Amino acid sequence: MNLVTIRELYKEKDKFIGQTVEVGGWVRSIRDSKTFGFIVVNDGTFFETLQIVYSDKLSNFADISKLNVGAAIVIKGQLVATPQAKQPFEIQAEEIEIEGASSPEYPLQKKRHSMEYLRTISHLRPRTNTFQAVFRVRSLIAYAIHQFFQERDFVYVHTPLITGSDCEGAGEMFRVTTLDMNEVPKTEDGSVDYSQDFFGKETNLTVSGQLNGETYAMAFRNIYTFGPTFRAENSNTTRHAAEFWMIEPEIAFADLKDDMILAENMIKYVIKYVLEHAPEEMSFFNSFIDKGLIERLQHVASSDFGHVTYTEAIEILEKNNDNFDYKVSWGCDLQTEHERFLTEQVFKKPVFVTDYPKEIKAFYMKLNDDNKTVAAMDLLVPGIGEIIGGSQREDNYEKLVARMNELGLKEEDYDFYLDLRKYGSTRHAGFGLGFERCVMYLTGMTNIRDVIPFPRTVNNCEL
Amino acid sequence: MNLVTIRELYKEKDKFIGQTVEVGGWVRSIRDSKTFGFIVVNDGTFFETLQIVYSDKLSNFADISKLNVGAAIVIKGQLVATPQAKQPFEIQAEEIEIEGASSPEYPLQKKRHSMEYLRTISHLRPRTNTFQAVFRVRSLIAYAIHQFFQERDFVYVHTPLITGSDCEGAGEMFRVTTLDMNEVPKTEDGSVDYSQDFFGKETNLTVSGQLNGETYAMAFRNIYTFGPTFRAENSNTTRHAAEFWMIEPEIAFADLKDDMILAENMIKYVIKYVLEHAPEEMSFFNSFIDKGLIERLQHVASSDFGHVTYTEAIEILEKNNDNFDYKVSWGCDLQTEHERFLTEQVFKKPVFVTDYPKEIKAFYMKLNDDNKTVAAMDLLVPGIGEIIGGSQREDNYEKLVARMNELGLKEEDYDFYLDLRKYGSTRHAGFGLGFERCVMYLTGMTNIRDVIPFPRTVNNCEL
Repeated sequence: MNLVTIRELYKEKDKFIGQTVEVGGWVRSIRDSKTFGFIVVNDGTFFETLQIVYSDKLSNFADISKLNVGAAIVIKGQLVATPQAKQPFEIQAEEIEIEGASSPEYPLQKKRHSMEYLRTISHLRPRTNTFQAVFRVRSLIAYAIHQFFQERDFVYVHTPLITGSDCEGAGEMFRVTTLDMNEVPKTEDGSVDYSQDFFGKETNLTVSGQLNGETYAMAFRNIYTFGPTFRAENSNTTRHAAEFWMIEPEIAFADLKDDMILAENMIKYVIKYVLEHAPEEMSFFNSFIDKGLIERLQHVASSDFGHVTYTEAIEILEKNNDNFDYKVSWGCDLQTEHERFLTEQVFKKPVFVTDYPKEIKAFYMKLNDDNKTVAAMDLLVPGIGEIIGGSQREDNYEKLVARMNELGLKEEDYDFYLDLRKYGSTRHAGFGLGFERCVMYLTGMTNIRDVIPFPRTVNNCEL
Repeated sequence: MNLVTIRELYKEKDKFIGQTVEVGGWVRSIRDSKTFGFIVVNDGTFFETLQIVYSDKLSNFADISKLNVGAAIVIKGQLVATPQAKQPFEIQAEEIEIEGASSPEYPLQKKRHSMEYLRTISHLRPRTNTFQAVFRVRSLIAYAIHQFFQERDFVYVHTPLITGSDCEGAGEMFRVTTLDMNEVPKTEDGSVDYSQDFFGKETNLTVSGQLNGETYAMAFRNIYTFGPTFRAENSNTTRHAAEFWMIEPEIAFADLKDDMILAENMIKYVIKYVLEHAPEEMSFFNSFIDKGLIERLQHVASSDFGHVTYTEAIEILEKNNDNFDYKVSWGCDLQTEHERFLTEQVFKKPVFVTDYPKEIKAFYMKLNDDNKTVAAMDLLVPGIGEIIGGSQREDNYEKLVARMNELGLKEEDYDFYLDLRKYGSTRHAGFGLGFERCVMYLTGMTNIRDVIPFPRTVNNCEL
């Protein structure tokens, strides 16, 4: 007999009630009296649990009653409707096989554990309610993103992780090497001899797939990446990890406006997908993690996002400088406090801030006609601040080279990138979505360590 | 007016014929006479191209006629059916705007280029027919795999890339470090002081997410990973890359037989998905890359895969030892020549080889009752050899520890893994699919460098 999943029991209740079924799962709780007992099991396929009733008619009644939380069992019995009870049905066990015992030392006893403690047992925490919800929703968000782009015929591109170039010049990178660290080979002039390294040159872990992605957008028109990126930044915050996943779509024959429409549609699509496919998990978050979450997300999914230029935003913020630790003025970068003020207090919904000063944005962003600002956009959302950053790209060869020279970037390092402006250059734009920030936004979880299965942060690389 | 894609024109022909449309795309070829000309454009959204007819009624007729291959243009005009021609329709241009010129130096002139040459311009090769087909199909295969697992409610798990442990002991790894390579800090005893490294310890790039994946299977029952993995092996072959993507499902309350059913269903699903969603590309591969490809795949999708134990396979192969460079005998590992002989000559279809000697397999595989073999399986396919490797996992704590001791593995390095056998251990199994091998198998491409956008191999890390 094949094991049925608890998800199937809930989704196809009418088919299974009255039938004899066989279910495998892990004990969440157990209580027994002299002649019968109740076991609550979860099999990981569904957020809700299943109640098992068993009695001393079972030959192994005594063994079962001694089971500890966490044990793996296989139950055979009739699924019976329980209209009076909290749960819709239960199994009246005819057989219970103990597949793998547990012990009183099992770290996840039936009580509330702190997030901090659960981080120390990252191999067991997915068995708790909170992390069952977080990591199923994480999986669904990932799939929703793929589905969104694939329905629109975007090509999914695997840009490389190991890279010979610092794409954006974006901060500190991890070195990748096979050189002997005990005895690093040196050249005659005393510098490291990277010609002996695996790739014959210096290599790092990527900080962004964008520049590679652009080459594919100029071939396929619409592409997206979805893969890991890395930052070797020594920042110990609730929002930074050394290893995280990014989604970077890139669209050709498209401008900043098209880019914002794409971003807005994507966010709304993902919200609707998760509310539809994980109602039990979202309801759990709404009750226990972030009250008001569902209402907030529904509001976002059904409202038009706001739009404001950086210059206008600065005017608004300057009037409120008293509220801020960092006072704003034109030319400064926006801090999280400013971003959250704009989206939470002023617009009360997600808002795109556009046309930033070129000095605070990357070299590849398209220069506006004012020669001062670039066609960039950041999407700010309530509770988080920036969740997406994007721009139209500079597609004019001369302007791009001029900007690179201003910033001291070497043309020869970007030959491939400049080629895109030499051979059939077009308007194009793209953005980056930090996947973990998106998961935090949709679940209400407040620490990035709790939305990554095995988080990597400064001085922390367990398992 | 919004640009329509060439894919939309082909898919919704009836809606567009007779209408005025606007299309953006890149020039594949251009020929002109005194008063009119033809341009073939591709916009990357569809494998087929679009023909444009233009005439000297256009004010920029002379400029257009001087366009080079690769130029980006936007065409406005009526879509007209062409029942006599090879292509189903063409656009009679009313306006052609030159968005980005190209030049006679454009490296992709209309002629046949060698794969070797195209590898030197990895930023431009996706604009060629072959790589348009390869990388769209790669994208579709990735999505088909996600869809297969998500339809079955598997949880997608992002296992970590940077790891503090050599999971499988599987070969050479890349070191990840932020230590100063010019002056590596040392401890008093002269060894490298990794306590000063970013994570406060030695870290590498992962070779497999399996052990992490197992921890999630024991929480969610059915999970899969899909992410990059790395090998620092100095092997310069057509089938090895230093960076490649792997899919690793893991299923609980499941044995080797369930594992093989899952693998067979997945392969068949992906084949059907690609044949259905990329008929033009598959037809191109069938004609120009690998004659007979489609028939072979259809045969695979519709036949039951073969099953043979390692011991039986050795008996078959021993009778044919004359044909092999490496002679086989019980206990030896199978080489590609043996694998291909089994699947191509003996079974003439995909075949699972099961129950290998424990000595040639990893420590975590479940020991069979004979104490000599383990519940492992390799799936061999014609034209490739091994494409999937998997096993039931040892779920018995004592047996696993005994095997680890035999192999000299330290228990303290695998505490988390052993915990899974202490707290609710269950039957479970999984496998690994090398994504690039899968792409090669489905496209007929014979060099792994030609199915990865920016391949990383020994001494090669361009872009």
